[in-house]
Amino acid sequence: MTEVFKINEILEALEGIDVIAVIAEGFKALSQGKVDIPPIGEMLFPKVNGELHIKYGAIESDDDFVVKLATGFFENPKLGLNPFSGCMLVFSQKTGQLSSVLLEEGELTNHRTAAAGAVAAKYLAPKEIDMIGIVGTGVQARLQALYLQRVTDCRNLMIWGRDKDKTLSAAEDIRSMGYDVKPEKNLAALCGASQIIVTTTPSTEPLIELEMVRPGTHITAMGSDTSEKCEIAPDVLKVADIVAADSIDQAVKRGEISQALRVNKCDRDKLIELGSIILNPSMGRVNDNQITIADLSGVAIQDIMIAKAVTKKLRKK
Amino acid sequence: MTEVFKINEILEALEGIDVIAVIAEGFKALSQGKVDIPPIGEMLFPKVNGELHIKYGAIESDDDFVVKLATGFFENPKLGLNPFSGCMLVFSQKTGQLSSVLLEEGELTNHRTAAAGAVAAKYLAPKEIDMIGIVGTGVQARLQALYLQRVTDCRNLMIWGRDKDKTLSAAEDIRSMGYDVKPEKNLAALCGASQIIVTTTPSTEPLIELEMVRPGTHITAMGSDTSEKCEIAPDVLKVADIVAADSIDQAVKRGEISQALRVNKCDRDKLIELGSIILNPSMGRVNDNQITIADLSGVAIQDIMIAKAVTKKLRKK
Repeated sequence: MTEVFKINEILEALEGIDVIAVIAEGFKALSQGKVDIPPIGEMLFPKVNGELHIKYGAIESDDDFVVKLATGFFENPKLGLNPFSGCMLVFSQKTGQLSSVLLEEGELTNHRTAAAGAVAAKYLAPKEIDMIGIVGTGVQARLQALYLQRVTDCRNLMIWGRDKDKTLSAAEDIRSMGYDVKPEKNLAALCGASQIIVTTTPSTEPLIELEMVRPGTHITAMGSDTSEKCEIAPDVLKVADIVAADSIDQAVKRGEISQALRVNKCDRDKLIELGSIILNPSMGRVNDNQITIADLSGVAIQDIMIAKAVTKKLRKK
Repeated sequence: MTEVFKINEILEALEGIDVIAVIAEGFKALSQGKVDIPPIGEMLFPKVNGELHIKYGAIESDDDFVVKLATGFFENPKLGLNPFSGCMLVFSQKTGQLSSVLLEEGELTNHRTAAAGAVAAKYLAPKEIDMIGIVGTGVQARLQALYLQRVTDCRNLMIWGRDKDKTLSAAEDIRSMGYDVKPEKNLAALCGASQIIVTTTPSTEPLIELEMVRPGTHITAMGSDTSEKCEIAPDVLKVADIVAADSIDQAVKRGEISQALRVNKCDRDKLIELGSIILNPSMGRVNDNQITIADLSGVAIQDIMIAKAVTKKLRKK
């Protein structure tokens, strides 16, 4: 029998789960070669700026495997609708039976994405954080700020966006989390003041240029998840002391790293996976002057881990 | 709000639907270039002889698109379980919202597959059918026989399988549909007597050799749906007057046609799609001496069509 779980009970279950630890465990398994992840499925709906991504895979020793369907239809807000939808499906690795359907409406994807940003900051950001800089004004701008609270005490935050009203609205939401928030019109000023910068936009042109980035900065680039999107100038990857990825296999095809590789601004040898750093933190940041980058395109292991954690809790109930 | 439909109501809705006509319409749209179908997603679980297929796509002018997840875990019967599971998901093409989940447990896949066999027989089989030959003893052996009743009056049927007990059990089930059924130990005798042969096995070695096939035979090969599986000797494709496929794009990668192409026993130019024959029946069988083959690997358009038809009916209710 397939169990179907609705959004309210999923969000309730999520509250008691240490999502950051769960996602970190997943990155470790990935970097240890314990996870089978087929290529991402993709379908585009250019007329309405929409996309479907199918991410799926299995940890080899697990009982279950997970398929995640996520849509992003970016004109939806004009219709008063959430841009994101989707679901996660849990199957038995032993029998192929569909055991659970999580009607998560894109929320688990949002949370596992934000948790990956917190994992990156935990292992790569400098010790002293006086300011967090958030680039972008959407769902992830808010959720990245929320999850960073679990890995840093810093409550000073600047936010930059192209649209003034959206920036003020995001600032207001983040303020309600307990941050002292300053909307900043000048992206260079935000970069100059922040030790952690999180880019969350769907930009296809670099926003952050080399001259904006000071020593001692960590950048988590999570907005670019396709081969077209790009938020960080390739020169920044060239000078960075550490260029980490959630998955190297995926990063060479999608996101900032793929862009920098294409123009020979980044060596493949320089890349390291977050999971490898978690397993061996000496491969992470070693002093407060380094520039570090974590390029996150979102990997099926995150979907597997969050779906497993939520399903386990819901089944107990 | 996502609506979730369970297996019982899905099977009930299916009863009033002309699945063969629905699938034929889908093949037409496919051959007219109106359907966007990304590559099939696939994950294998070799330890338990299991596989996951993800088939998905959209008819460009439709409101919805469909993603189908189908598992086949072929050791399941030893555990007393159905080898097939899965579900179909209906999303809006305008907003990406997940509108319906069909918990069909692989049944809609089974029905759309059998309906495609009936479409092939309708357009390619000779006029006079004295005998139907079924090769294999599984779910499709039964369902192909059931759906053929809707396109031919012939009620004489031979069945061949490697396992005696399974052959007798399938024969019994097919007899209950109103067929006069003869289990046949000699595959050559079955081929010699039948004007429609349907192969439904997961064989990886040819079962039907050139010398078994007489003029005036139509073969529907639906068992082989991967690049490894093969039921028909490539020489049969070489001599066949018509070699049709559900999808040429897919057939060159999977199934009998891919095998014959690999050993230069079939020209790509010779291939024709079922949809093209439905649109222009003069491209189908023109006399009762031709040998015709329909190689079916199962296309997302079938999943789209059956999911649409069932969902439309269930929503009305």
